[in-house]
Amino acid sequence: MLVTVYEDGALRRRPDDVIVEEPMTIQLDGNIVSTTMRTPGNDYELAAGFCFSDGLLDGAAVKGVRYCADGAASESQFNVVTVETGGKAPVPTPRLGTTTSSCGLCGNDAIEALCDRLERLPATPPIDLDVLTSIPNAASGGQGLFSTTGAVHGAAAFTPAGEVLITREDVGRHNAVDKVVGRMLLDGQLPATGLGLFVSGRASFELVQKAWAAGFGTLIAVSAPTALAVQTARRAGLMLAGFVRDERLNIYAPERMPL
Amino acid sequence: MLVTVYEDGALRRRPDDVIVEEPMTIQLDGNIVSTTMRTPGNDYELAAGFCFSDGLLDGAAVKGVRYCADGAASESQFNVVTVETGGKAPVPTPRLGTTTSSCGLCGNDAIEALCDRLERLPATPPIDLDVLTSIPNAASGGQGLFSTTGAVHGAAAFTPAGEVLITREDVGRHNAVDKVVGRMLLDGQLPATGLGLFVSGRASFELVQKAWAAGFGTLIAVSAPTALAVQTARRAGLMLAGFVRDERLNIYAPERMPL
Repeated sequence: MLVTVYEDGALRRRPDDVIVEEPMTIQLDGNIVSTTMRTPGNDYELAAGFCFSDGLLDGAAVKGVRYCADGAASESQFNVVTVETGGKAPVPTPRLGTTTSSCGLCGNDAIEALCDRLERLPATPPIDLDVLTSIPNAASGGQGLFSTTGAVHGAAAFTPAGEVLITREDVGRHNAVDKVVGRMLLDGQLPATGLGLFVSGRASFELVQKAWAAGFGTLIAVSAPTALAVQTARRAGLMLAGFVRDERLNIYAPERMPL
Repeated sequence: MLVTVYEDGALRRRPDDVIVEEPMTIQLDGNIVSTTMRTPGNDYELAAGFCFSDGLLDGAAVKGVRYCADGAASESQFNVVTVETGGKAPVPTPRLGTTTSSCGLCGNDAIEALCDRLERLPATPPIDLDVLTSIPNAASGGQGLFSTTGAVHGAAAFTPAGEVLITREDVGRHNAVDKVVGRMLLDGQLPATGLGLFVSGRASFELVQKAWAAGFGTLIAVSAPTALAVQTARRAGLMLAGFVRDERLNIYAPERMPL
């Protein structure tokens, strides 16, 4: 699109790439489970990855993923994606209850529910720190949108040797991670034991929980983690590093590294 | 907390501030409407602002906001906040239905529902562009957390003269905006006609929708907007600028400025 630039006291018009953000509704066996604002592309991976990371599959195999195209043809039919397990996955429960519940249900319970079902990760050899600091550059080869729009986040799965296996981008960091996890799920590559996950930007609780659910042993972020992200990584047995740049990083979990 | 730093090939330990992220459940007249991951602080503003921005109040006055403290005393009781309208607000409907709905309900409908209820903003005199480029610096005086943690977002309301009225911070950009809007709602200062809203980072659809709902005529962001944010701002009659830094900015809405 054309944008008006104000610089050095003067206005001028120039073309500008803007990242696309559209709602996508995810269904599991025909039940709506979430609507997320996402960058279109790799939608099947996003839907499958979301259902997996949120624990909605409960071990059920994904038999198919498809756009909801049984209604009248319209643009928005490509904004609804259904993950099919043939009814093997449990019926999802609404996250928003309208019953009066006082303190009965709160966010802490939701966090416990997400984490309680997950086993502590198996111990795997730590990935070399110089490999970790090389990943942001290695992964940025697959992050074409960021450089043109400045508005997109990236996620990547990588090996202990520093090989980047999959990179995905999205306006939402959590969606980029769901796309990576969804690709691996659809390819039968989960759990991601021994592999690392890279995210641009910050590491929140949500990203640690998704990495844990997929079985990654290491999560590295370009920016800072939150306190709950650190706490959850320690609980998971996940190696969590932040401010990962060329030649440097901060290790938040485990709490103590052998020096 | 203590963090292990890897730099120049060596490991050392040093203290590090990490941003706090905790779940907060928002209730409206006893009905759960949302659980958000937020930085504790200004919780009443966040709850009131969220209910207002999402259109849940439907014109009803807020009679009170309180922590849910009628259960057994526990830490988590400060993670549930109830907004009271004495039943004047409509009963919220679940966002996640478990009925089979095919294409009947999707994210596009949700976006329409959020925007349809909003009137186009009244025309107000445009804020001077040099005032807009001064806001990031002016607002950062109130953004103490960012410099120490590198993980927090800020939002601020400002006047056409460049005076910063309110600044709020949070691990979530949308929460920082809800806190600003909530403060103004509780102070009887909405709609924010003629005022501007500043956000650190990017401008998504969600932020434009919140600015529109609160009546701000101008939204400026430090980073890029999304395509849907631009489209929504044009629909709202909201002035939207991105990449706002010292001395420069990009104007995305209105589509065409008088040159």
